[in-house]
Amino acid sequence: MNNDVLWRDRKEKLKQYMKRHQIEAVLLTSPSSIYYFTDFYAEPHERFMAFYMEAETEQELLFVPLLDEQAAKLAAKIEMIIPISDGENPYEVLKASCQRPAQLGLEKNVISAARYERLLEVLQHPACVDIEDGIAALRMFKSEYEIAKVQHAVQLVEQVVAHAAKLAAVGMSEIELAAELDYQMRKLGADRPAFETMVLFGARSALPHGRASSAKLKQGDFVLIDMGVQADGYCSDITRTFIMGDPSSEQRRIYSAVLAANEAAITASRVGVSLAELDRIARDIIAEAGYGELFTHRLGHGLGMEVHEQPSVAAGNETFVQAGLLYTIEPGIYHPELGGVRIEDDVYITDAGTARVLTSYPKQLISLG
Amino acid sequence: MNNDVLWRDRKEKLKQYMKRHQIEAVLLTSPSSIYYFTDFYAEPHERFMAFYMEAETEQELLFVPLLDEQAAKLAAKIEMIIPISDGENPYEVLKASCQRPAQLGLEKNVISAARYERLLEVLQHPACVDIEDGIAALRMFKSEYEIAKVQHAVQLVEQVVAHAAKLAAVGMSEIELAAELDYQMRKLGADRPAFETMVLFGARSALPHGRASSAKLKQGDFVLIDMGVQADGYCSDITRTFIMGDPSSEQRRIYSAVLAANEAAITASRVGVSLAELDRIARDIIAEAGYGELFTHRLGHGLGMEVHEQPSVAAGNETFVQAGLLYTIEPGIYHPELGGVRIEDDVYITDAGTARVLTSYPKQLISLG
Repeated sequence: MNNDVLWRDRKEKLKQYMKRHQIEAVLLTSPSSIYYFTDFYAEPHERFMAFYMEAETEQELLFVPLLDEQAAKLAAKIEMIIPISDGENPYEVLKASCQRPAQLGLEKNVISAARYERLLEVLQHPACVDIEDGIAALRMFKSEYEIAKVQHAVQLVEQVVAHAAKLAAVGMSEIELAAELDYQMRKLGADRPAFETMVLFGARSALPHGRASSAKLKQGDFVLIDMGVQADGYCSDITRTFIMGDPSSEQRRIYSAVLAANEAAITASRVGVSLAELDRIARDIIAEAGYGELFTHRLGHGLGMEVHEQPSVAAGNETFVQAGLLYTIEPGIYHPELGGVRIEDDVYITDAGTARVLTSYPKQLISLG
Repeated sequence: MNNDVLWRDRKEKLKQYMKRHQIEAVLLTSPSSIYYFTDFYAEPHERFMAFYMEAETEQELLFVPLLDEQAAKLAAKIEMIIPISDGENPYEVLKASCQRPAQLGLEKNVISAARYERLLEVLQHPACVDIEDGIAALRMFKSEYEIAKVQHAVQLVEQVVAHAAKLAAVGMSEIELAAELDYQMRKLGADRPAFETMVLFGARSALPHGRASSAKLKQGDFVLIDMGVQADGYCSDITRTFIMGDPSSEQRRIYSAVLAANEAAITASRVGVSLAELDRIARDIIAEAGYGELFTHRLGHGLGMEVHEQPSVAAGNETFVQAGLLYTIEPGIYHPELGGVRIEDDVYITDAGTARVLTSYPKQLISLG
């Protein structure tokens, strides 16, 4: 389908959701939601930007800062664009532009308390419904159009991972290598890192939330690299773990267990299996290898315009794998002395109901140096 | 004074503010405010992190995600640190840890509507007061301890500006140069760019909110570089405009007018002058040169832990210059064909009541290539 149809379809699905939940109008304020429904992206910072749509009428309004008006006119698949200058009161503009809905859908985790109170006031206290879950549920299903963008972001980041494997050398610090990788992704044409590039060496690779430090690479260290790029609005996310020099036999055992868990969860990824089951399959393999206690996080998460989206691939999420889902599979073992290993791939469930793995960087244990 | 005294002093000032405004307790949720009052910085993302303090008692509580507990214990100048695991309900932990204040101060522009509603509920609907302006007014006055950190961030960014002047070459794209500069700042030891590094060539330098693009540098182009680094929690912010090759006579006139406006506003920066007056002094010089219409933004803004803080150096802000303020002076002229020129310095008002300019990179028009 061509793109205009794609956007009409997204708005239509949102309207159906609104009708099912008796929501008369929505006011979306997160840049990614606005981008999703209008094809216009901007970072308004402290300025007011919002997409307003009613379920039962044709009314669709895009409020943008005046300085973004031209860009919005070029990009947005919305007829009515309402610019707001710095001198204007956005709440008054809003009040003048739309009627007062009886029920209003908002992203309550995105909108600030200050804005929320002002909105309630000018719209004369509609019943407010949090529609964040509803929008997340729509965004969870990716079209081929979106997957092509993610695939592009994956291709870029995999070139950077290859660069990392060439560049890593004994004595280099985590920060130095991370800086090189960020530089490389920009040179390749990525817009920015999808999140802070994680480079961890040795025992530090066992910190699941560690940040690149001045620690230097030593012989025998694991080199854990977790990174993604944002390109054309979409994110990639990949983790590969290398070894500097030769692994010890226990490092090799740890690596093999993680790889087996990663591969088994990917093989099991098909329509009809629950996400909790995928998590269990990976966790069982790691537990059987004797490292169950050291796999301390969920198996994966959805991604798309943001690096963390629905669904959560975790124990307790009994949602079934369905066509259109895109999620990471990233088991890990974090040994306090020997270091951590994580292997992360991006998996898309096709219309045929089976997994298409977007990441293709080799997964056997590679010795560097 | 030693640092512990510094933090006690900050909390004491906040308590005085609370008493003056009849606020029984505050719950701060922005990472930078938490850092300011506790010396502990973390990015909790979707997790709950907050600093709770009562005005009339000694009670001070720091709620942190469990995974940040060790880091908080090492850094925070707070006795009571309360970790919250992913399995716990943070609102229940909060309810169990503190009494219910009658008046609660919150940063309403920071806290989300969803969190706000949950807080109101568990704390049994206290009267909520927005204390964002109060905290901004405290943070506006910088100690020498903070200025030393900003000065360090300035020293780093000025090395990067010098690098830019050496690197810029005809045919290079804005994005390429920006990527080189971001790489350079990381190599020098900065934590990250303080904001997206702005590199604009030729007519594009006339876009005050322009972003680096694939446009290539040509002979005769202005090269506008607006950048800052964040290091050890504090930001620098500098703009320099170069010319590739030789300027036309009008480009030279434009540059001279901006430089004269920048210098006059810095010279006028001393205790007792209003911020509006500084803006007027700069604006008058640009208007006299015939470019008044093309200076389209305020003269400057405060900076510190964030790149935009109080005060606003703008028409209408009748606040007087006072010892301890730190702000940018950044007049500009944006000519749609010839390009834009902006010259930005960081100015600190010392205890002696006069300006100390933290930026020292040369300001005469430098020809590149």
